Amino acid sequence: MKTLAVVLASGGMDSCVTAAIASQSHELAFLHVGYGQKTEEREERAFHELADFYQAKHVLITHMDHLKAIGGSSLTSPDMQIEDADLEFKGVPATYVPFRNAHLLCIATSWAEVIGAGKIFIGVIEEDSSGYPDCTQSFIQTFNAAIASGTKPDTKISIEAPLIHLTKSEIILKGKTLGAPLNLTWSCYRSSTKACGQCDSCALRLRGFQQAGCVDPIPYE
Amino acid sequence: MKTLAVVLASGGMDSCVTAAIASQSHELAFLHVGYGQKTEEREERAFHELADFYQAKHVLITHMDHLKAIGGSSLTSPDMQIEDADLEFKGVPATYVPFRNAHLLCIATSWAEVIGAGKIFIGVIEEDSSGYPDCTQSFIQTFNAAIASGTKPDTKISIEAPLIHLTKSEIILKGKTLGAPLNLTWSCYRSSTKACGQCDSCALRLRGFQQAGCVDPIPYE
Repeated sequence: MKTLAVVLASGGMDSCVTAAIASQSHELAFLHVGYGQKTEEREERAFHELADFYQAKHVLITHMDHLKAIGGSSLTSPDMQIEDADLEFKGVPATYVPFRNAHLLCIATSWAEVIGAGKIFIGVIEEDSSGYPDCTQSFIQTFNAAIASGTKPDTKISIEAPLIHLTKSEIILKGKTLGAPLNLTWSCYRSSTKACGQCDSCALRLRGFQQAGCVDPIPYE
Repeated sequence: MKTLAVVLASGGMDSCVTAAIASQSHELAFLHVGYGQKTEEREERAFHELADFYQAKHVLITHMDHLKAIGGSSLTSPDMQIEDADLEFKGVPATYVPFRNAHLLCIATSWAEVIGAGKIFIGVIEEDSSGYPDCTQSFIQTFNAAIASGTKPDTKISIEAPLIHLTKSEIILKGKTLGAPLNLTWSCYRSSTKACGQCDSCALRLRGFQQAGCVDPIPYE
């Protein structure tokens, strides 16, 4: 019998392929966390469609209002524009939501502890990404240690980040191999109808499809 | 000039004394997190009174609904009773809210990163407490490592837990020495008018006052 794993699913391509990988060895508990990002509704639709596709055993959608209240990111602050992508930029971009993945992993950990899941899958990627500090192998390792020390002694939960060292194009090819429904996913930071094609997230996605030699199935402006 | 520190303040005695300690060396940003606990409203009143007392430079109250949705604790689940205290019990009691302090520290970290605070003060105590795994020195150390790796390279934030090795009676005496307004604090898990005197939190508090040789200034049933 497959054991239970929590999958953090934004509704984007990376979490879709992460779910495809996790589903090979686990029953899935799909977790989505809204945090006031501008495309939240569109992400939730993608999340539900992916959870249905992977026949999730448990589904939980939660909302955090504190990241928006705290601000400091163009993804959540109404007074900050989401800039066009600059894939040559070396630094932490304005779309960085302070310590966001730690919040997501906390919710996943609490839920995993209650429903008895031993793994948390998260689709972070380190090298071929936007340079967010909370998407690194080193962060995942330190957070694993925090889970081990901060949960009950008999709780055993660890984080799996199967994409962390892949490029976007490798993720796309992996997804195609596993039959992942990339057509259901949503990545754009700005728009909820047709993807803008210009923001960081769109630019990384489109470059990935180009490098993989295939066509992105979602609509662009 | 004093630098800025975030103080996680539940409104209880431990966070009050923690704020008293922090205020000696820092300007304070008071942070309260409601998470659906049964005495939330009473805690918020205590929080505001303490923030006023310490002339907080910033004040933030946030609410998380996911810990209640996730459940698994008598503090948040309507179908679980808050049991009478058993101070001899060796284990993790039913009041344990799975991984709660990690959620609080995440919010504190995101806020600290945005407002430019270098310290987060939290009033956890390890030995003389309820046996929660997320109240240990080891947890604080691992979480410090997660903050260092998961925030921007130029962000420097560390957690201070000045009470961690104190007993409740030592905390009370420390608070009295520093002029901390213990009369404004609230600890009871069950009641919001007069403290029940029977729950884990009341029992620990009352034993602390007894051992310190002084009288608790708040009303009991």
